[in-house]
Amino acid sequence: MQIAQVRGTVVSTHKEPSLRGAKLLLLQFIDADGRLLPEYEVAADWIGAGVDEWVLVSRGSAARQIEGNQSRPLDALVVGIIDTVSVDNRNLYSKREQDRSSFP
Amino acid sequence: MQIAQVRGTVVSTHKEPSLRGAKLLLLQFIDADGRLLPEYEVAADWIGAGVDEWVLVSRGSAARQIEGNQSRPLDALVVGIIDTVSVDNRNLYSKREQDRSSFP
Amino acid sequence: MQIAQVRGTVVSTHKEPSLRGAKLLLLQFIDADGRLLPEYEVAADWIGAGVDEWVLVSRGSAARQIEGNQSRPLDALVVGIIDTVSVDNRNLYSKREQDRSSFP
Amino acid sequence: MQIAQVRGTVVSTHKEPSLRGAKLLLLQFIDADGRLLPEYEVAADWIGAGVDEWVLVSRGSAARQIEGNQSRPLDALVVGIIDTVSVDNRNLYSKREQDRSSFP
Amino acid sequence: MQIAQVRGTVVSTHKEPSLRGAKLLLLQFIDADGRLLPEYEVAADWIGAGVDEWVLVSRGSAARQIEGNQSRPLDALVVGIIDTVSVDNRNLYSKREQDRSSFP
Repeated sequence: MQIAQVRGTVVSTHKEPSLRGAKLLLLQFIDADGRLLPEYEVAADWIGAGVDEWVLVSRGSAARQIEGNQSRPLDALVVGIIDTVSVDNRNLYSKREQDRSSFP
Repeated sequence: MQIAQVRGTVVSTHKEPSLRGAKLLLLQFIDADGRLLPEYEVAADWIGAGVDEWVLVSRGSAARQIEGNQSRPLDALVVGIIDTVSVDNRNLYSKREQDRSSFP
Repeated sequence: MQIAQVRGTVVSTHKEPSLRGAKLLLLQFIDADGRLLPEYEVAADWIGAGVDEWVLVSRGSAARQIEGNQSRPLDALVVGIIDTVSVDNRNLYSKREQDRSSFP
Repeated sequence: MQIAQVRGTVVSTHKEPSLRGAKLLLLQFIDADGRLLPEYEVAADWIGAGVDEWVLVSRGSAARQIEGNQSRPLDALVVGIIDTVSVDNRNLYSKREQDRSSFP
Repeated sequence: MQIAQVRGTVVSTHKEPSLRGAKLLLLQFIDADGRLLPEYEVAADWIGAGVDEWVLVSRGSAARQIEGNQSRPLDALVVGIIDTVSVDNRNLYSKREQDRSSFP
């Protein structure tokens, strides 16, 4: 999986019928030092990730391994909202601190 | 999925029999700032995307998750025509405005 | 799919038994402006593409979606010989013109 | 598979239900000369790899080819802890020496 | 498939049980001009490729399309030892000459 930040949404009304009801998020990838990369993915989200949150994204056939997705033409899925990322025993990211800094 | 713009078409008469009738579009990828990237994909299209429109493209086995595609040797599929892309709560792309600017 | 030009062949006598009889072509990728890229793929070909021709190549599990390939360890397949590539309503490539220029 | 070094962990409490109990490691890729690359992968680990160890990581549908993972939305898996990597008949990495140098 | 040169081996004793007995080779990719690239793959080998030989490597689910590999978490496989690579009707590589130059 890759670490990504929710940056926005993509809306498509004229689409494959099986994709109706799917919420599509624009996720921008984050490197192992916590910086935004130019790469992104538009991924389906059923767990309710919000803008600015860090998430884990699975790509390829993994995106169809959840109930109801098996025959949808999806190649990317938000599989979790990240609480913490620790690298070399220090905290690279903590959702709690992120939330706090949003309400100073 | 990736965001891409329809740039043209690819015609092949001598091809795998199961691909007969498939409309193949040349899609050029777009980055998270709305700029054209050099990367492209030739994707099958059954929803009727037109030149210059922005679309969502699924790659890999996802391209075969629609009725009739299950055993076609396809690795890319147009899964939706994009209405809007929003990043950081501002509109990166809106099909309506795009259409309007085409008919001034 | 990607657009590629047939550049040559790869011969392997000591190989997985299921690959016996497979013709393996060296394909070099072509970008959306018609230029050769450094990237290449060695792909199986059952439709008879010849050197210098432009072809469409499918990668991943798509390469096994044709009769007889289902359980071969292949990850790339020539799925069509290209007649024309049109970008922005102009002809980027035409097999007919290519053939003519070969017999001046 | 790629060679990677365990750099840390990713914790997510709000995630796909099928991922409960999965230990997620942040792995940074290593090149054929033994240097850290910027690329990383967050992979599930059931064999108990520890920080700083070198591991083999499988990606794509391979990550679901172990008992219990078949229908989890995973696209990366630690498949082995590396003992030695030999290139051109010299030792590029040896876990034993690595362990020793940690306890001088 | 990609063309790669066998550069070495990777040994892992603590690994997924289904990988026991698998010989893992470190393969470095070769470009269409015959030069070594920085990219590599650790691939399973059941056909007995030796150091310095050029091989064809299949990646993704293709690596599991041989008897006995179906449920192993492998994403790369040596599928053939290369005899010759011809590009533009000249020989880019010939195993016979390579062998000869090793025994002058």
